[in-house]
Amino acid sequence: MKNLKGVALLGQSGGPTSVINASAAGVFLEALKHPELITGVYGAVHGIKGVLNEEFYDIGKEDLTELERLKNTPASMIGSVRYKLKDPAVDDTDYKRIVEVFKKYNIRYFFYNGGNDSMDTANKISKFLHDSNWDCNVIGVPKTIDNDLNITDHCPGYGSAAKYVATTLMELYHDATVYDTPQVTIVEIMGRNAGWLTAAGALAMAEGQGPDLLYLPEEVFDYDKFFKSVKNLIDNKGKAIIAVSEGVKDAEGKYIPEHFTDMHKDAFGHAQLGGTAQILAEQVKKQFGVKVRAIEFSLMQRCAAHLASKVDVREAFNAGKKAVREAIKGTTDKMVAFKRVSNNPYKINYILIPLEKVANTEQTVPKNWIKPNNLGMTQEFLDYARPLIQGDDKASLEDGLPRFAKLKLIRVKKI
Amino acid sequence: MKNLKGVALLGQSGGPTSVINASAAGVFLEALKHPELITGVYGAVHGIKGVLNEEFYDIGKEDLTELERLKNTPASMIGSVRYKLKDPAVDDTDYKRIVEVFKKYNIRYFFYNGGNDSMDTANKISKFLHDSNWDCNVIGVPKTIDNDLNITDHCPGYGSAAKYVATTLMELYHDATVYDTPQVTIVEIMGRNAGWLTAAGALAMAEGQGPDLLYLPEEVFDYDKFFKSVKNLIDNKGKAIIAVSEGVKDAEGKYIPEHFTDMHKDAFGHAQLGGTAQILAEQVKKQFGVKVRAIEFSLMQRCAAHLASKVDVREAFNAGKKAVREAIKGTTDKMVAFKRVSNNPYKINYILIPLEKVANTEQTVPKNWIKPNNLGMTQEFLDYARPLIQGDDKASLEDGLPRFAKLKLIRVKKI
Repeated sequence: MKNLKGVALLGQSGGPTSVINASAAGVFLEALKHPELITGVYGAVHGIKGVLNEEFYDIGKEDLTELERLKNTPASMIGSVRYKLKDPAVDDTDYKRIVEVFKKYNIRYFFYNGGNDSMDTANKISKFLHDSNWDCNVIGVPKTIDNDLNITDHCPGYGSAAKYVATTLMELYHDATVYDTPQVTIVEIMGRNAGWLTAAGALAMAEGQGPDLLYLPEEVFDYDKFFKSVKNLIDNKGKAIIAVSEGVKDAEGKYIPEHFTDMHKDAFGHAQLGGTAQILAEQVKKQFGVKVRAIEFSLMQRCAAHLASKVDVREAFNAGKKAVREAIKGTTDKMVAFKRVSNNPYKINYILIPLEKVANTEQTVPKNWIKPNNLGMTQEFLDYARPLIQGDDKASLEDGLPRFAKLKLIRVKKI
Repeated sequence: MKNLKGVALLGQSGGPTSVINASAAGVFLEALKHPELITGVYGAVHGIKGVLNEEFYDIGKEDLTELERLKNTPASMIGSVRYKLKDPAVDDTDYKRIVEVFKKYNIRYFFYNGGNDSMDTANKISKFLHDSNWDCNVIGVPKTIDNDLNITDHCPGYGSAAKYVATTLMELYHDATVYDTPQVTIVEIMGRNAGWLTAAGALAMAEGQGPDLLYLPEEVFDYDKFFKSVKNLIDNKGKAIIAVSEGVKDAEGKYIPEHFTDMHKDAFGHAQLGGTAQILAEQVKKQFGVKVRAIEFSLMQRCAAHLASKVDVREAFNAGKKAVREAIKGTTDKMVAFKRVSNNPYKINYILIPLEKVANTEQTVPKNWIKPNNLGMTQEFLDYARPLIQGDDKASLEDGLPRFAKLKLIRVKKI
């Protein structure tokens, strides 16, 4: 719908990344440039929950220099959420409330920044708004370190997390090989079903300073084969560095920690994982009696903004900007996506894909990009991933520490 | 002893840091400048073990540009060791062997880079060489992220590790506060008996983006008080971020994991720790039913060279350089140390202190620098620590990843 006049609202959803705020900066700074159509720029306090509770930040009251600093500030400055809207066919209470709030605050542009669950949320909201005769252009802005969104070449957040994984594995390689005694280091990397982030370990491997083995959830985890590989490394090199995705499953479809602990489910029905590296390390110690280290990259891999990729920051920012530009032109029900034109020189086009095509789908690593016997990734993967980790872009230092954005976060008065 | 002519040998010992190789660069590059006295520059393969095994790298065969790159390459490029020499009064086999090897290879300058155990080793070796009538100038170069060496104002390695701790806690602060649901994040930081590194969390606190509570091993860990503090934070803020040293002990003198696992001892008789954060997080979850995260900074805190402090890199390099300059002037049995002249502007002098004064001693955090109720550190600590984390100095990027030093590591032919 063209020439809509009203408030532009951004919500952030799901797990943070180093650059989700860069996308927010893109949305906010671009939206503030169009006062002829956009009468107010709001940030939803904790995503869709902020909408339901009529809680918004008035971004128009922020300093532009601080909004610029969002580019290098990790996590979700306006708050994120893990709240799954029900299927409107079953229970449309939340949707009715959202329409009510959108009307009350004259919200005519809605940007939702998140992963596949969030794109599903945005899609459902958009349909309900349409059925309720409330004109509002809805655009999704992708983000996820998991890099598992459909159709788009890659996702904002992935490049920086991949750079963290590869850089840190290179540093650990140096640390884990200083003694002349046998040592097995097992590093656990995020990724429930998609192994993109663990695959980034191959970038360190390619420098000759990375892990020996990579275990992605795309392949069945075979305990016997794993212990055999580790034993070979101990016997031949005295050292083994192994990167394993938190989401690897054995032939019975069980996660490694499932053998040991009851699993709890989060609001989306996903299993809450953890402990994969630790359990494997304990088993290795038991079997081979060598020194072991279990390391989890934990939240650091998704919030280490000091190690963000310049390409990633730029693309995340541009994705937010593009969303606003498209919305004011009348585009709706789309997600901003990347289409790769070439690897060298690296070039992408910003494109739009229907929200429903990304909603609740998952793009895993192509199996033919994974080398046999957990020996890493093919050249195709390296060519794909390398452009995404290029360059540095981080907050300036103050007192030797990053000067992150400081927003006033002034609430919009409830009507 | 002045005008000694012979080989200069460097050994690295103990746990790596981000800048131990910067000290090596200082020793090597300076030693190569004095061919009139120093006839060869060797690196011991795995510290004192390399001496016992007659295994040395011939540093004279390396490219100078690669030796320069050591400044920004983490861990111990020539290999480290955790091997404790026996008391020579009980068993002098190793010492006799060392004298034999020093004579055989005409080693006249011995530099040992390590912590207090290593200074003890250097001191004992020096005494034995003297008693064996082998003239050799022995200088210690300090390193330890633990910052626990006596007399010196601080230790190379601490500033970079402190910068990692403070920066990462700031990033985690952003990540751990994005949801509107209660969450307790417990971060475990290295430090067996000295809490210097955990104290660095106060630098993040001072930015208003850090942990709520710090637990240092200098103070008795009180379970009841801990749970009460956590409950207060959950009730009042919904969030708690807690930095805890791996070495905290309760009133009975027991480490937290001691309640749960048998403890193993390493070669120096130190307890091998780990799991403190995890155990506390599990207990918090049990008692308060909130979402918890246990995070270990693990090896990353000591090898994240991409986040090294410029001041630390410079001082580590200069300490190595100073060691060589002093040794060729005839100084022996000393460790290079720092004496602070002023905080603002930050200025230190490089001084020399007797090895025996640092050997096996431990400098813990002054108790009057620790705020009551685990609320952080005093202004005195901040004034002390802040200069040490200033500036960035890291490896240049190649393919988006750090280009670390690549040494040829050519062995000296055994005589």
